[in-house]
Amino acid sequence: MFYTDGKLQFPVRVEIPDPQFARALQQAIGGVEGEIRVAMQYFFQACGARGNPKFRDLLMNTAAEELGHIEMLATAVALNLEGAPVSVKDEVARDPVASAVLGGLNMKNLLSAGLSAMPVDSDGVPFDMSHIYASGNIAADMTANVAAESTGRVLATRLFNLTTDPGMKQMLSYLIARDTMHQNQWMAALEELGGASKVFPIPNSFSQEQEMQDFSYAYLGFQRDGSEPAPGRWSEGRSIDGKGSFKTIVPQPMGEKPVLAPAKPNSGAQAEQI
Amino acid sequence: MFYTDGKLQFPVRVEIPDPQFARALQQAIGGVEGEIRVAMQYFFQACGARGNPKFRDLLMNTAAEELGHIEMLATAVALNLEGAPVSVKDEVARDPVASAVLGGLNMKNLLSAGLSAMPVDSDGVPFDMSHIYASGNIAADMTANVAAESTGRVLATRLFNLTTDPGMKQMLSYLIARDTMHQNQWMAALEELGGASKVFPIPNSFSQEQEMQDFSYAYLGFQRDGSEPAPGRWSEGRSIDGKGSFKTIVPQPMGEKPVLAPAKPNSGAQAEQI
Amino acid sequence: MFYTDGKLQFPVRVEIPDPQFARALQQAIGGVEGEIRVAMQYFFQACGARGNPKFRDLLMNTAAEELGHIEMLATAVALNLEGAPVSVKDEVARDPVASAVLGGLNMKNLLSAGLSAMPVDSDGVPFDMSHIYASGNIAADMTANVAAESTGRVLATRLFNLTTDPGMKQMLSYLIARDTMHQNQWMAALEELGGASKVFPIPNSFSQEQEMQDFSYAYLGFQRDGSEPAPGRWSEGRSIDGKGSFKTIVPQPMGEKPVLAPAKPNSGAQAEQI
Amino acid sequence: MFYTDGKLQFPVRVEIPDPQFARALQQAIGGVEGEIRVAMQYFFQACGARGNPKFRDLLMNTAAEELGHIEMLATAVALNLEGAPVSVKDEVARDPVASAVLGGLNMKNLLSAGLSAMPVDSDGVPFDMSHIYASGNIAADMTANVAAESTGRVLATRLFNLTTDPGMKQMLSYLIARDTMHQNQWMAALEELGGASKVFPIPNSFSQEQEMQDFSYAYLGFQRDGSEPAPGRWSEGRSIDGKGSFKTIVPQPMGEKPVLAPAKPNSGAQAEQI
Amino acid sequence: MFYTDGKLQFPVRVEIPDPQFARALQQAIGGVEGEIRVAMQYFFQACGARGNPKFRDLLMNTAAEELGHIEMLATAVALNLEGAPVSVKDEVARDPVASAVLGGLNMKNLLSAGLSAMPVDSDGVPFDMSHIYASGNIAADMTANVAAESTGRVLATRLFNLTTDPGMKQMLSYLIARDTMHQNQWMAALEELGGASKVFPIPNSFSQEQEMQDFSYAYLGFQRDGSEPAPGRWSEGRSIDGKGSFKTIVPQPMGEKPVLAPAKPNSGAQAEQI
Amino acid sequence: MFYTDGKLQFPVRVEIPDPQFARALQQAIGGVEGEIRVAMQYFFQACGARGNPKFRDLLMNTAAEELGHIEMLATAVALNLEGAPVSVKDEVARDPVASAVLGGLNMKNLLSAGLSAMPVDSDGVPFDMSHIYASGNIAADMTANVAAESTGRVLATRLFNLTTDPGMKQMLSYLIARDTMHQNQWMAALEELGGASKVFPIPNSFSQEQEMQDFSYAYLGFQRDGSEPAPGRWSEGRSIDGKGSFKTIVPQPMGEKPVLAPAKPNSGAQAEQI
Repeated sequence: MFYTDGKLQFPVRVEIPDPQFARALQQAIGGVEGEIRVAMQYFFQACGARGNPKFRDLLMNTAAEELGHIEMLATAVALNLEGAPVSVKDEVARDPVASAVLGGLNMKNLLSAGLSAMPVDSDGVPFDMSHIYASGNIAADMTANVAAESTGRVLATRLFNLTTDPGMKQMLSYLIARDTMHQNQWMAALEELGGASKVFPIPNSFSQEQEMQDFSYAYLGFQRDGSEPAPGRWSEGRSIDGKGSFKTIVPQPMGEKPVLAPAKPNSGAQAEQI
Repeated sequence: MFYTDGKLQFPVRVEIPDPQFARALQQAIGGVEGEIRVAMQYFFQACGARGNPKFRDLLMNTAAEELGHIEMLATAVALNLEGAPVSVKDEVARDPVASAVLGGLNMKNLLSAGLSAMPVDSDGVPFDMSHIYASGNIAADMTANVAAESTGRVLATRLFNLTTDPGMKQMLSYLIARDTMHQNQWMAALEELGGASKVFPIPNSFSQEQEMQDFSYAYLGFQRDGSEPAPGRWSEGRSIDGKGSFKTIVPQPMGEKPVLAPAKPNSGAQAEQI
Repeated sequence: MFYTDGKLQFPVRVEIPDPQFARALQQAIGGVEGEIRVAMQYFFQACGARGNPKFRDLLMNTAAEELGHIEMLATAVALNLEGAPVSVKDEVARDPVASAVLGGLNMKNLLSAGLSAMPVDSDGVPFDMSHIYASGNIAADMTANVAAESTGRVLATRLFNLTTDPGMKQMLSYLIARDTMHQNQWMAALEELGGASKVFPIPNSFSQEQEMQDFSYAYLGFQRDGSEPAPGRWSEGRSIDGKGSFKTIVPQPMGEKPVLAPAKPNSGAQAEQI
Repeated sequence: MFYTDGKLQFPVRVEIPDPQFARALQQAIGGVEGEIRVAMQYFFQACGARGNPKFRDLLMNTAAEELGHIEMLATAVALNLEGAPVSVKDEVARDPVASAVLGGLNMKNLLSAGLSAMPVDSDGVPFDMSHIYASGNIAADMTANVAAESTGRVLATRLFNLTTDPGMKQMLSYLIARDTMHQNQWMAALEELGGASKVFPIPNSFSQEQEMQDFSYAYLGFQRDGSEPAPGRWSEGRSIDGKGSFKTIVPQPMGEKPVLAPAKPNSGAQAEQI
Repeated sequence: MFYTDGKLQFPVRVEIPDPQFARALQQAIGGVEGEIRVAMQYFFQACGARGNPKFRDLLMNTAAEELGHIEMLATAVALNLEGAPVSVKDEVARDPVASAVLGGLNMKNLLSAGLSAMPVDSDGVPFDMSHIYASGNIAADMTANVAAESTGRVLATRLFNLTTDPGMKQMLSYLIARDTMHQNQWMAALEELGGASKVFPIPNSFSQEQEMQDFSYAYLGFQRDGSEPAPGRWSEGRSIDGKGSFKTIVPQPMGEKPVLAPAKPNSGAQAEQI
Repeated sequence: MFYTDGKLQFPVRVEIPDPQFARALQQAIGGVEGEIRVAMQYFFQACGARGNPKFRDLLMNTAAEELGHIEMLATAVALNLEGAPVSVKDEVARDPVASAVLGGLNMKNLLSAGLSAMPVDSDGVPFDMSHIYASGNIAADMTANVAAESTGRVLATRLFNLTTDPGMKQMLSYLIARDTMHQNQWMAALEELGGASKVFPIPNSFSQEQEMQDFSYAYLGFQRDGSEPAPGRWSEGRSIDGKGSFKTIVPQPMGEKPVLAPAKPNSGAQAEQI
């Protein structure tokens, strides 16, 4: 159950509205590395959490935080859009810069949302909920969360570099700090689950005796000339999960060219295929 | 540049065609944790790799492998679909089981693809390339790859448990082993990049002095009653990146209720909003 | 800013897990008339609300409620999925009914989510955030909300009729009551904005003198034979907004067949088009 | 069955081609509040109409009109795009304004459509048919239609304000008038269905005795501090459907923290969850 | 401008409602090879047609026909769905077959559309307007139309084979005949544009002197072992457009391994990439 | 099985990075007529090829080539993006042109990909795998391939005209030549399948006696006034498949207005519909 006080987690202040920066900020709302994604991802992971309830609590608590981040960013978008033209008569026609601004907007922020934020990315593409990774495996979920917060912080620093507005820089410096925490937080959860050697390979409930172990720690090379691919930590030494040793193999096809049966009559194929 | 020999990386053998299992296998082709995703993700990460070229090689080499996995799975789907009915006159009408089979298919495998594989998931939803994470940050990419292979192996073990066909089990035991390797491989790449303390927080090129450090290692609690959230590794001890110490804070709103300016005239708002 | 207590707004109890009903419930989570839609729609409308702040409060308060409804339904889906088979060896092979159940599932609930809820509809299609209508016009938003709650209650009653589980029926009878309230609530908001005669036509800030008023209250007939279309309240009497009188017109084309300029050289057209 | 005469319902005239305005007009074609949406929505509602056939006729007749509106707007887009550069050699290189125009386009109008209209919105996102609401409940459909025409007229007035071209203003003044009619038309249909007190709550065929009536007319408050939310017409007085009285309730969770069963063996969960 | 008489182009008769066949028919409405696609594709091609107006007329005339086909199929879906259960109490609980039927449906036809047709495919995936190919090149459009009608007729014959209902078979035999005509019709349009030797390569307005003609008629082989790929009509003889002769080449990479510049400071990359 | 050498099929050279052209090039990567589409389309057609294995070889061999084209274009995008600003402080603020450049970008190329290519089109819309046509009918597939290469070459020539960079023009002149070959190649495959008279109507395995032959070669006119539509090759002479003669018919509705049964009780309809 969720509650609100309608206030912002952190102050959102815009000194000089910049509609183009509003467009960039949309990525942090509705981009695949944005706040809707993490809010909903943690929410659904929490709802499906089986096992130790502390993970459900951790996830739902953080989902609540991220909802507040969407709220902050949506406010920032609306404030920045207050600089956009809405009437060509009064503004754009007299001003080539206004015209350029219009060209640089997500048009929908103006036409569909009336100078408000939308759940779309910086090119106006709506967020698609298939990006909510909630696998039913708590460790796999944590890796997805580390990835989400890593790309999320990369994005936030790019936004930080694209603005000179002090209010926006301050808001972003707060959000970047939270991403630092969340990267660490989900890695801490992996540590609490036992660390790399207990967690991996994910899922750890599947007996490795059932996998074809000759290939479990082999770096396969697919160079056209049959040469070994460039070596690295991934081709030598103990595997990260501690359960094998890396090696390199140049594989040959073990299967033949596949041959499917002729097409069935009445299956809509050409006669020549039947 | 890519080359092919038309052969399969590993033999694909189906003893008793099972159209319902063909549907399940589609998830490993066109699901968000499937092979198109990893093939294309590594491919695009390679194309955008800046810095040490060994990472480009690593990524493109593995992309080539994953293309071969799509090929294997697409063959497996087609072979399993050979058991599906195509003509109600000959088969379904006489056989309630055939009718049930028809209901349990991705219809499009029959109607659009003529008993072949498609780039869709197990519910017939087409794969959407927004799932290709290639961030321009090599470490963020590696976290996305660990996540992809973790959910990928979870999926592969679920498929393994859903079939009794020896050929399918063997093929999956091979693919599961490869997922084990790839999980380790991308973690090894993170180690080669310096390990947690050098890699995190991602991006490590953004000076942490620019983030609001009071909140960089704080687990914030959003419990309605103001109580502290359940503790864990994420609320105490050294942070995983080694750059701070976890603590818990119960935050108060630092911002006020947001107040946007009245709507502009000519902005399509109601008169009462202007 | 959002808070949670991790508890459910209303008890969710499932007596006999029914995976097929779990699939149906997914429509109420991730369908276009589901709870993600209303939660996010009210949230974004609140964030962009300009004018009297009571509407922002109303919207954000109700968004908080709807988040709790997603939580309830996601729990209901997970509980119902506890009846689904995960291993063909143990269950499906011995049991044709289990096989039928497997065919009737959203496969992704099993394969991607490990028997948990997902933000997808009852056919496994992910929710797409383009369904969040937040227009910047408070009255237009209210009409979208009435529509959302109307289709939402239609869905909820269909779900009610599809289950015999007493726990599920009770949960749904609660959600149906909330939909009744919310239909009334948004209509009450329209009344507070002045009722039909003041609110319509939306937006009421656009002077009707600028529209081509001959056609503002005319029911146009597009019957092939030039006959008048069947009459109704929409073709006679005072218009609902009280600003005109309905009439019927059988229109003739006022424009000609459009003629575009020849294709430009270098525009990729065929030579014959240039 | 449909027929055409290839002529335009209303003249489409562009004095000075404006490619940027072409981009904006795309929202009225392929935006979620655009003409494809209403044309197809009324069409599918008509095809599924059960009960009094006059509603089918009303819907299909209006669908025919909206098809003509797409035709008008597509012509307007093509005419406005005649000002766009297609060859950098001849035009863009010599002219920074042409370069800016190129940046402000939907690129696909140029690259994919050769200066023609496309079924995409003003940011180039294709229209997605999930926006066709046809619920099988005639009253719910009418609320969706009122919402579609309300957001549609908001959009049309925004477009009207963004252009100074007299031909475009005239075309839009016609379309705005039609939106006025259609808002009224669908409200008239609701009146013909009995008006608010007979129509609501939708569906009116579900006995309200089956819903949990304590909550049917209660405005629930989800303020963190347990205070009552701001009052309004929605919290006092007779409900709009005339079947209850509004009141305010500050709810407590009636359910507990949800506890799911441990994960099943073989379900792909981590061992710790089983 | 479009008109309707509300009647069906061809009678739609269902003797025994078959909800599973309704699901299959959805592919012919909202599948990528379905009727919405062709109706809208011809419509948008017509709207953007430049050059000889007879092609606009041809396209818009056929668009009108296809709208009538959607109408027929939507009626067929609704009639077939009349056999679906809507209440588990009355029907499904007593009848395992009804339960199987429920599992084999597009759930949304029941839950979202109340036993009506929707603009979705046979797996419930909404039609996406990106499939409307209208390129601004009349010949390219014709090739897309031949492809659409070819996959369309393949689909229609598959549907024909999946039903024994005489009414459905008759309706499909009509639609299959129309697909025969339309395949021929668009090929006839290509003939009217000059036939293969004048039409190809598309666009014929781009001077072939500007292309790298050494590779214009060469079948390149990408076999891993450097062998020539299997020969065929595509590797020998006059090219189909009559402007060259087919040959086979085994290519070597002409480019090197790509090397991108180091990542820019402030671009969100890892420090190691800069 | 696939192999790589990491080299480019053709040199990719950019003299003056042009971020706006990078945006345009994205259409050739992730547009519906782009290289991902053809690579994956040929790949899936190969995997499902039944009948003469030479078509599988032809398709898979060409898929390998197209993968190399994505690689070339992704490199070209990254090189062109090296001219984009990443930090407003250093670049954009001092330079209105940089600001315009920022407005003309796909923002995601900067924010999500760090100046690399993405699998999106020129407006930032991700590629959707529903565009992979692999029908199970080899001839229908070939028509889809001709269409793909026709729109592909149209696009490539448009890109050629939009750049003055010699490196980009050279790369495109190579790709345009390959499109010429591929158009011819797939037409040659149709010729090898027997040419128009043997191949059409597709599928040729469905006996034309089962279609309603009165309508198989009739150009139907849907002009409102009952006049014959404009004649053309499609209305007179031998049909292209050689199996009939074109004629024109002005059709009357053969069906009546459809009447669906009243809505079922418990189906969520309004009471008036039942």
